Amino acid sequence: MSDFEQHKRRPFVRKVPEGDDRERRVCADCGFIDYENPKIVVGSVATWEDRILLCRRAIHPRKGFWTLPAGYMEVNESAAEGAAREAWEEAFARLEIETVLAVYSIPRISQVQVIFRARLTSPDIAAGPESEEVGLFGWDEIPWDEIAFPSVHWALNHFDEVRGQTGFAARFNPPGETGDY
Amino acid sequence: MSDFEQHKRRPFVRKVPEGDDRERRVCADCGFIDYENPKIVVGSVATWEDRILLCRRAIHPRKGFWTLPAGYMEVNESAAEGAAREAWEEAFARLEIETVLAVYSIPRISQVQVIFRARLTSPDIAAGPESEEVGLFGWDEIPWDEIAFPSVHWALNHFDEVRGQTGFAARFNPPGETGDY
Repeated sequence: MSDFEQHKRRPFVRKVPEGDDRERRVCADCGFIDYENPKIVVGSVATWEDRILLCRRAIHPRKGFWTLPAGYMEVNESAAEGAAREAWEEAFARLEIETVLAVYSIPRISQVQVIFRARLTSPDIAAGPESEEVGLFGWDEIPWDEIAFPSVHWALNHFDEVRGQTGFAARFNPPGETGDY
Repeated sequence: MSDFEQHKRRPFVRKVPEGDDRERRVCADCGFIDYENPKIVVGSVATWEDRILLCRRAIHPRKGFWTLPAGYMEVNESAAEGAAREAWEEAFARLEIETVLAVYSIPRISQVQVIFRARLTSPDIAAGPESEEVGLFGWDEIPWDEIAFPSVHWALNHFDEVRGQTGFAARFNPPGETGDY
């Protein structure tokens, strides 16, 4: 059992450990430090032929708006496995993950998004419990006015920029907190 | 104050929330769910001219072995800021981050590594508290037999593969838990 597992049920206090420069969660019994880290969202721009998979959110925030299949990475999975799992949970879509399209950081909410480029292995999709509906959209059919989050805009546009390219750099956030979109 | 901030000091229990499929940390007072996520390591392959910055570890694990400047990302910073911070803390090196070199997943320890390609803005470096010594190494001078972790091998070799290229795909782990190195 890991140190972390052993301490899941113990009392924690917040203090600056010796040699450190910021407050941490520290086990009041033995001094084990439970570092707080940013959370990783994994997702994909996944296509069937030229059409992109989007999901209309059935949950808050941004219920009713369209998003890419994406969500919090779980423990004991790879980033790519997590992106494939989210596509299955939200759209019953099976993916072949190709490569990293982009890595976005949103420091305000301590979040990192790893977005993959992927292909659907079949066009059979259906709304999962967190989606009101799902669809495959040609570029000109994307409901641009009903997109849930800035990073969905970023990822769609980065995807379009590198469409058909097999060697392209993973991308950073565009400038500005919302990427000037 | 965020939900998470409000609950930092409250009692948590472990149970499967309604509609979920796995055990979570849940606030015993109000049901707030504190999801556990993989941790993000941010680091860089950083060069001055043709030489690569390496740090000899002054701490466990793998004390005395050489590694890239890298460490756990902190809350409220971007991945690139974190990589630059680690280079400063471990080697008093100032970086210009260029792009994402690789995204490695290590599901066994629930870790994701985001490794950047970067340039030092000056060759002035010095060992920080977590380094026994630091150095700038030409490719043929790298102490290959004293490298701390498989992912350091991966990143160095991925760096070499794309050296001089301005458009290259971010990389995944090589096959196998240690990347067949």
